[in-house]
Amino acid sequence: MLQNPHAVMHIQDPASQRLTWNKPPKSVLVIKKIQDASLLQPFKELCVFLTEKNMIVYVESKVLADTAIAGDESFGAVIQKFCTFREDLDDISNRVDFIICLGGDGTLLYASSLFQESVPPVMAFHLGSLGFLTPFKFDTYQSQVTQIIEGNTAIILRSRLRVRVVKESREKKSIIMTNGDSEGSRKSMQYQVLNEVVVDRGPSSYLSNVDLFLDGHLITTVQGDGVIVSTPTGSTAYAVAAGASMIHPNVPAIMITPICPHSLSFRPIVVPAGVELKIMLSRDARNTAWVSFDGRKRQEICHGDSITITTSCFPVPSICFRDPVNDWFESLSQCLHWNVRKKQNYLSSEEEEF
Amino acid sequence: MLQNPHAVMHIQDPASQRLTWNKPPKSVLVIKKIQDASLLQPFKELCVFLTEKNMIVYVESKVLADTAIAGDESFGAVIQKFCTFREDLDDISNRVDFIICLGGDGTLLYASSLFQESVPPVMAFHLGSLGFLTPFKFDTYQSQVTQIIEGNTAIILRSRLRVRVVKESREKKSIIMTNGDSEGSRKSMQYQVLNEVVVDRGPSSYLSNVDLFLDGHLITTVQGDGVIVSTPTGSTAYAVAAGASMIHPNVPAIMITPICPHSLSFRPIVVPAGVELKIMLSRDARNTAWVSFDGRKRQEICHGDSITITTSCFPVPSICFRDPVNDWFESLSQCLHWNVRKKQNYLSSEEEEF
Amino acid sequence: MLQNPHAVMHIQDPASQRLTWNKPPKSVLVIKKIQDASLLQPFKELCVFLTEKNMIVYVESKVLADTAIAGDESFGAVIQKFCTFREDLDDISNRVDFIICLGGDGTLLYASSLFQESVPPVMAFHLGSLGFLTPFKFDTYQSQVTQIIEGNTAIILRSRLRVRVVKESREKKSIIMTNGDSEGSRKSMQYQVLNEVVVDRGPSSYLSNVDLFLDGHLITTVQGDGVIVSTPTGSTAYAVAAGASMIHPNVPAIMITPICPHSLSFRPIVVPAGVELKIMLSRDARNTAWVSFDGRKRQEICHGDSITITTSCFPVPSICFRDPVNDWFESLSQCLHWNVRKKQNYLSSEEEEF
Amino acid sequence: MLQNPHAVMHIQDPASQRLTWNKPPKSVLVIKKIQDASLLQPFKELCVFLTEKNMIVYVESKVLADTAIAGDESFGAVIQKFCTFREDLDDISNRVDFIICLGGDGTLLYASSLFQESVPPVMAFHLGSLGFLTPFKFDTYQSQVTQIIEGNTAIILRSRLRVRVVKESREKKSIIMTNGDSEGSRKSMQYQVLNEVVVDRGPSSYLSNVDLFLDGHLITTVQGDGVIVSTPTGSTAYAVAAGASMIHPNVPAIMITPICPHSLSFRPIVVPAGVELKIMLSRDARNTAWVSFDGRKRQEICHGDSITITTSCFPVPSICFRDPVNDWFESLSQCLHWNVRKKQNYLSSEEEEF
Repeated sequence: MLQNPHAVMHIQDPASQRLTWNKPPKSVLVIKKIQDASLLQPFKELCVFLTEKNMIVYVESKVLADTAIAGDESFGAVIQKFCTFREDLDDISNRVDFIICLGGDGTLLYASSLFQESVPPVMAFHLGSLGFLTPFKFDTYQSQVTQIIEGNTAIILRSRLRVRVVKESREKKSIIMTNGDSEGSRKSMQYQVLNEVVVDRGPSSYLSNVDLFLDGHLITTVQGDGVIVSTPTGSTAYAVAAGASMIHPNVPAIMITPICPHSLSFRPIVVPAGVELKIMLSRDARNTAWVSFDGRKRQEICHGDSITITTSCFPVPSICFRDPVNDWFESLSQCLHWNVRKKQNYLSSEEEEF
Repeated sequence: MLQNPHAVMHIQDPASQRLTWNKPPKSVLVIKKIQDASLLQPFKELCVFLTEKNMIVYVESKVLADTAIAGDESFGAVIQKFCTFREDLDDISNRVDFIICLGGDGTLLYASSLFQESVPPVMAFHLGSLGFLTPFKFDTYQSQVTQIIEGNTAIILRSRLRVRVVKESREKKSIIMTNGDSEGSRKSMQYQVLNEVVVDRGPSSYLSNVDLFLDGHLITTVQGDGVIVSTPTGSTAYAVAAGASMIHPNVPAIMITPICPHSLSFRPIVVPAGVELKIMLSRDARNTAWVSFDGRKRQEICHGDSITITTSCFPVPSICFRDPVNDWFESLSQCLHWNVRKKQNYLSSEEEEF
Repeated sequence: MLQNPHAVMHIQDPASQRLTWNKPPKSVLVIKKIQDASLLQPFKELCVFLTEKNMIVYVESKVLADTAIAGDESFGAVIQKFCTFREDLDDISNRVDFIICLGGDGTLLYASSLFQESVPPVMAFHLGSLGFLTPFKFDTYQSQVTQIIEGNTAIILRSRLRVRVVKESREKKSIIMTNGDSEGSRKSMQYQVLNEVVVDRGPSSYLSNVDLFLDGHLITTVQGDGVIVSTPTGSTAYAVAAGASMIHPNVPAIMITPICPHSLSFRPIVVPAGVELKIMLSRDARNTAWVSFDGRKRQEICHGDSITITTSCFPVPSICFRDPVNDWFESLSQCLHWNVRKKQNYLSSEEEEF
Repeated sequence: MLQNPHAVMHIQDPASQRLTWNKPPKSVLVIKKIQDASLLQPFKELCVFLTEKNMIVYVESKVLADTAIAGDESFGAVIQKFCTFREDLDDISNRVDFIICLGGDGTLLYASSLFQESVPPVMAFHLGSLGFLTPFKFDTYQSQVTQIIEGNTAIILRSRLRVRVVKESREKKSIIMTNGDSEGSRKSMQYQVLNEVVVDRGPSSYLSNVDLFLDGHLITTVQGDGVIVSTPTGSTAYAVAAGASMIHPNVPAIMITPICPHSLSFRPIVVPAGVELKIMLSRDARNTAWVSFDGRKRQEICHGDSITITTSCFPVPSICFRDPVNDWFESLSQCLHWNVRKKQNYLSSEEEEF
């Protein structure tokens, strides 16, 4: 209720969130990109350091399957102390105090996928390529990890999208026709997405045709290669390649970006975090569409299926190297060559130039 | 303080704001685009209706200077009851309960400019062209105005930017050189902006070169035709023509859009509402820049001058026709021809088409 | 040889090409989009008209499979006179004097695909939706067809691309490993393309990575959703949706448009018609790519395969409604709503607007 | 006349143009960017080298006004041999065999402006920043200049635009009102443009409104910041910043690029070199426009004035470092950081990445 119609706005300070511990952290999940030899040495160093700090180190079983790790005798004593787990089989959701990622942005997406509800704080090192999600340099890892363990560092809550896919059961459909009983004919899946949900034409050469609903109302039909629904974090990933503006991860919003839209006046749009989006095949779509979640779990979407998207209650708390604003602009500078200044002037004039 | 590092987000419902009156509204400011003959009849009708409702009607003096109004004898009795005022001379900031705009988006920008602090709720009719800010149709104005007077309609708070321009006093500058006393050598002005602040190259053929600071840090140098700093409301105005995404007015954000940037990888960026932006000429800029505020008050910016921009505490409460989400998508549909469907498929296939 | 280094250019008049007949045309191929009931009546009318003019009418067998045509007794006498043929089985390349298309742009793409060498002049009617390739209205078809038969109308030569795909024979590959004999291990196919060749990531979620060679030199690697190589005719089809400029079909050029490129500074590029382009998977591409030709013949491209593209010697002579320049701008106006003027001004000013 | 309607196209080889001399070149114009200390030493070295080769060296008087040149006693003997001239006063159009530019792209634009009819071949060195028009490196200037003098190097004819501005004489206009005599009331000027003609809103905050005619027909009205009419050479200058595709300079075309157009579906368009464009203020334009030519000679355009643009008969013969194709892609690579590869993949998958 807006009691006084002459309204005054209260604006939140985006840089105010900080990480503090109620009790000292004891367990850490280390995520390492596999099949990348350059990460082996940093991984081992870090694990030795963490065990010396008496941290319980969680590592995924398949990381240890690498013969360069399993076969390293000098590293054997450290491996003995690891807690291992298998993806999709073992639940570690309440056993990890924080996460350390070694690799590119993909490691953070992977960390996100492991925690479908609340996510422990993540410290991400860029090793090799710089990304948008990996602010830490490895060369001073000891002091930086120590500081995180001691608490009181800046943190940014990267919002995620909660995506629910409801599929008509195609097998049951013939039965429905005859007896009208639709019980049990739907299948529902849920995903937490850090970057984006992509709906595209998949292997088809045809335009995809999907209807976009917002809070239950049909907003528009997207005709083209597809549509990207992304978080602010995802705005600098696939969405920016499709023409989106880049949104700071602290802005509470959802971005909708058409991919090569047939209508030239269809621009990317940004809606408030609180809305509910729904995507379905248009009635007159000639072929199916395909959906993926942070590039994973790709699946076909047929007539009658629906994809419902809202801002998740479970963001990824991402530990800052400096603070949310500086970290973001630093990654823009690096990834987009913003600071590579060319002095050449395309609009020159005889008066001043000669 | 984020006590529990496994964070949970609380997301606000963007459609929850409503207008209610503490006591019945008594005064209304009617803004009419001048020099538009098609608005005369609606203006007169509306004013008669409002005076019959015993509302005190404020009208700007120059509107009445139009001979088609002043010379209309049958309208004379109504004019007698008007409270008139002159822009920049008479202060009506605390005397108006709400505002009615007749014309295009420009009338709302004008209404905004009249209120440098808190703004009364605005009801905007589109007459002639449809805009993004004028959701009401005039043909049912009686029931609609009555409903606003009775209260309880949806409202959207359109954020504004507070812009402070600080100028070095050029006259004093020579004095400064000799005695180093800069006291009193600066001149400061402040503006409330609903759409955007534009900094551009003005009459020059040269690229403009301006430095962009965020919370005191130099973020980047914008080299090109200029830069647009806009509200979400302004994202669908000049900014979208310069390549920006379209942001729903309920998203608490500020948009920074380069105009024809020299660096092809410089994209529009969206930052949280709470930040402070500052724009200055770059040290090596060869010519001055020009700044304007919602297209008004255009002025030159020289070396040493600064433009400081934050989200204003004083938004424009804009009365919705339906609700913030539907109104916005309706204006997108109309302004961008979103619903004009072309069935032609650019990717066709012999299998299905023939 | 540029004898005089102070060069003078000779510029060709793009509007000078005209259709004339050495001897009166006798045979016409009528192409009708199938499964579109609205085209039945125009198709029948046109065929009756052409047989009355003593033209030999060629129609594809599958068009006559439509029961609405085959079962129409009053049309039976006309059908008797048709010459029918089956796609991919019967060669009509030297038997047709000109072509009439009924439908959208797809009918012209289809006509193009039927003639892998020289193409007869095409007269294309838009029925239903307006396209870029179909300038004629059906309501005055009699006088217009008569005029074409009599000769002397404006014509535009729409360039095509000749595309050669060379595939490593994957089955032989294991043999190659052992005996090094690669004879006969390659398979080559050739296509004539009127709009575009598209190379994309197909069903994969990964970025495609393709190397682009120009006259034998590696120019760049395209990392993204893919790349479109199009004719000027194709510039207003898929390419424009991917961000390309629109090129008049008389410009002798080839357009290369990246689809959602990873590098934000990668823009569409236009090269002279005389060059040879080659596309191959990059050495470090993690997945295959897919290629299609005017949306048809979609196939996988693996490591070692190559796609070679040059301007074809066999353009599509497309009969103009008025002339090449007016027809093109007319289609732009219609397809892009260029003439829908909105009077709203985003940059307004108090001085003039109020 | 297209005698055989089954047309065959003849496509020109873009790389075939070469520079040869009828008789050995004797005179060379050296253009140096002024007020750039880093160019002094290369300038002097080059001039010494050329005089030792017995070339007659032309230098503009103002270049010698630089005290660092005029005051250098050791250089005095060389200066003695210079032929000097003053811009706009002395005609050197038939006295120079070729031109050497030292500086950025601006030097080539300047060279172009000195020759309003045929232009001698230009050899352009990039010193400092790399540009699109300056392929030569200075460190091996001796062998490279020798090779040009000996003839037989690749050359590219960069097309120019011939622009005629016809202005209503505003002073005479009041007279016209009274006596209707318009004789002598128009003023006509002509320019040769290498990059682009820009028509923009100048110092105004309003949208510019200009009508665009092609071969006498009104094509569209451009509503926005303005419009750029550029050569292919200019497509990589201001036009690309406004969203244009990049056109190889051998494509015979003219590019029309709207600047921040009000209509979101208005894309840059490319028309054949042979057309005639005309730009005038729209009848309902509220303010004047401004025009400039390669960033120079900026002037106001009022109601009734016209700007007529065609491809000039006098291109700029630009000497290639390697050949027209390689030089162009090399400059794209350098200017756009095309070869800076980032290995990060935005679409990652657990299957392969982990």
